[in-house]
Amino acid sequence: MADAASREFFTTRTVAEALAGFRPGRRTGTQIVPLHLALRRVPAEPVAAPHPLPGFPRSTVDGYAVRAADTYGVSDGLPGYLTLAGAVRMGAAAQEAVTPGRAIAIPTGGAIPPGADAVVMIEYTAEVMPGTIEVVRPVAPGEGVVRADEDAKPGEVIIGGGRPLRPQDLGMLAAAGVTSVTVRKKPVVTIFSTGDEVVPADTPQLKPGQVRDATAAALAALVADAGGEPVLGGIVPDDPGALEKALRGALPTSDVLVISAGSSVGVRDETANAVARLGEPGIWCHGLAIKPGKPTVLAECAGVPVIGLPGNPRSALVVFRLIGMPVVRLVGGCESPPPQPSTRARLSRDLASAAGRLDVVQVTVGEDGVATPVFGLSALLSVLTAADGYIVIPDEATGLRAGSEVEVILYA
Amino acid sequence: MADAASREFFTTRTVAEALAGFRPGRRTGTQIVPLHLALRRVPAEPVAAPHPLPGFPRSTVDGYAVRAADTYGVSDGLPGYLTLAGAVRMGAAAQEAVTPGRAIAIPTGGAIPPGADAVVMIEYTAEVMPGTIEVVRPVAPGEGVVRADEDAKPGEVIIGGGRPLRPQDLGMLAAAGVTSVTVRKKPVVTIFSTGDEVVPADTPQLKPGQVRDATAAALAALVADAGGEPVLGGIVPDDPGALEKALRGALPTSDVLVISAGSSVGVRDETANAVARLGEPGIWCHGLAIKPGKPTVLAECAGVPVIGLPGNPRSALVVFRLIGMPVVRLVGGCESPPPQPSTRARLSRDLASAAGRLDVVQVTVGEDGVATPVFGLSALLSVLTAADGYIVIPDEATGLRAGSEVEVILYA
Repeated sequence: MADAASREFFTTRTVAEALAGFRPGRRTGTQIVPLHLALRRVPAEPVAAPHPLPGFPRSTVDGYAVRAADTYGVSDGLPGYLTLAGAVRMGAAAQEAVTPGRAIAIPTGGAIPPGADAVVMIEYTAEVMPGTIEVVRPVAPGEGVVRADEDAKPGEVIIGGGRPLRPQDLGMLAAAGVTSVTVRKKPVVTIFSTGDEVVPADTPQLKPGQVRDATAAALAALVADAGGEPVLGGIVPDDPGALEKALRGALPTSDVLVISAGSSVGVRDETANAVARLGEPGIWCHGLAIKPGKPTVLAECAGVPVIGLPGNPRSALVVFRLIGMPVVRLVGGCESPPPQPSTRARLSRDLASAAGRLDVVQVTVGEDGVATPVFGLSALLSVLTAADGYIVIPDEATGLRAGSEVEVILYA
Repeated sequence: MADAASREFFTTRTVAEALAGFRPGRRTGTQIVPLHLALRRVPAEPVAAPHPLPGFPRSTVDGYAVRAADTYGVSDGLPGYLTLAGAVRMGAAAQEAVTPGRAIAIPTGGAIPPGADAVVMIEYTAEVMPGTIEVVRPVAPGEGVVRADEDAKPGEVIIGGGRPLRPQDLGMLAAAGVTSVTVRKKPVVTIFSTGDEVVPADTPQLKPGQVRDATAAALAALVADAGGEPVLGGIVPDDPGALEKALRGALPTSDVLVISAGSSVGVRDETANAVARLGEPGIWCHGLAIKPGKPTVLAECAGVPVIGLPGNPRSALVVFRLIGMPVVRLVGGCESPPPQPSTRARLSRDLASAAGRLDVVQVTVGEDGVATPVFGLSALLSVLTAADGYIVIPDEATGLRAGSEVEVILYA
């Protein structure tokens, strides 16, 4: 295996290089979804307010709409007196205007009557006799008032593109009367499992040497978390032609292809070979400077990003979280990934790490703020299920000392 | 309003008291869901491994299955020699046993043959002539081997109850052949909006004084984030009887009732009155020591938790995030809430706060790690959409100094 094509397969990259350099250009198309289905969807473009919001000046308090000038200089010792000229009803325009020396009763959220420029809180007033309001605190113009365009000016961007919609964003869109949103379609991520030893998860009785497909179920969940639409392509036997055929078949309907590879060396090479034959520009790296997860293949074939994951379930899930989820997000138009839960903790013990390689170490985090590594083989899923999160030892570090403060990315 | 029942309405509580003391006993029933729909669902009970996992001893490397004792003392200078007695195929039991002086070729993940207790990595071997393997590094018993029950012993709990299922948990269940899970039903959370000024979000043209129902859409999203099933009960006019009737109608089909109240004082009192008449034990607090969000009503009526939110959209969403989401989670059997994203930042300016009241302040967080407060009225949703997250100034604090380190809970 000394020809150029084969050597290319063994281009190892760091995680930082992969995150910065493996940026497939593919983007999903757009679709229109109703607001109640738009949570976490990624707007394809910014949304502007079609009219000012709230749309009319409103009271922020229960009280009396007044001309601020009519209250200047009043105090407990020297109250002012205004003539009550009516009341604002919620949900309706004011029937009367406020003229000098007059006040109109107004509830919180009511429409400020013409002529009024402030609202005196009811706490600073008293209806001393029917139709006469005593005021003991002055108000400045604008006090107690939400301006008609204070929440949004007409044409102002209320929701940016490229960031998943949060609950409050849906509220803002509803306020503006925007009841559907143009979003990026969810990237279709087809997940293939390979390996003669792998059988479907619903296999009740295993034969000796068989294991159930655990990785695909977990990968599908990570794809969903990244805003993608997982499609399980099934289990492909360890056969050079079978994998290529399966991948080729899924190419036209997939935005991202993921291969949860068999774990033996031969199978890993077959995965890379099958991917290499899939289309241009082909393999971007074969080997990632990460532990666990070294035997990772990243490629772009005929416009589709392809991620070949290590065979060990734990390694596969670590790599997909670090490298695969950002790719799925990117293809889905998400330029501002949502923040991930994390916490600071003190490391319970020394951790060794080789320089030039990023290490991912699963930990539990106690109530005492101590992060305790969960050790175990790359083959073990129980390391991930027992962990609260993980710490990353960067490429350049040769380890971490017991007691050092670490950031734990928490599994949510 | 001096009778006992009315005074009870004005029991103000702190947020800490509410979180510790307002713990409704209601729990949803259970249902069985297939694994691919189980992400973030809450298992009603722990799940145990039905058999050992992986179920047979497996190789962790590509190499040769051996008896460890046969390698003791070997080195580069003094290699050992073993007779090649066959090869393990993936997904099948070993055909041959390893007897003294013999080795069997094995790929990563292959089943360890009987008689072997370790695997020598291929890197430390050479097939010096057909059928003879040279070994230059000794292995200890167990080296290169995953034990048959190393991922899980039979009967061992692989997934605890009461915590939302994470991607790796689904993987572990799949590995164990558990393809459906008994989970808590999603709590049905009926959301009512009240206020004569409030019109549906799909109202194209507002009349003067009207506002669209923004809060319900955002609340529905927060309910979904808390694992609940939001049901929009619609907009109820400001009419004492109408709200009680609407709430009473929803009581039999709801696990939690949420009222996004009108904002004027009269309407707030009507909300409390309607809730109080709904059933025993009734109102738990009327008023929460939080800013924004004081006019909050918490109640439990006829076995259903009821949350009456302030009328201002921002206040309503702040309170629902702090108090409402934990209640929805609790009713849905979630005893270990998932971690929320947060980051440390330095405060850009002094923030005042009244002692005895918890303050929630929305902030943006710059790349320089500086948290800048987003100020604005409680009525403004734009404060929430502009913010990256919020900081909490605890009850006992009277403010925070510019430059102090704060924890920002990030909006995801």
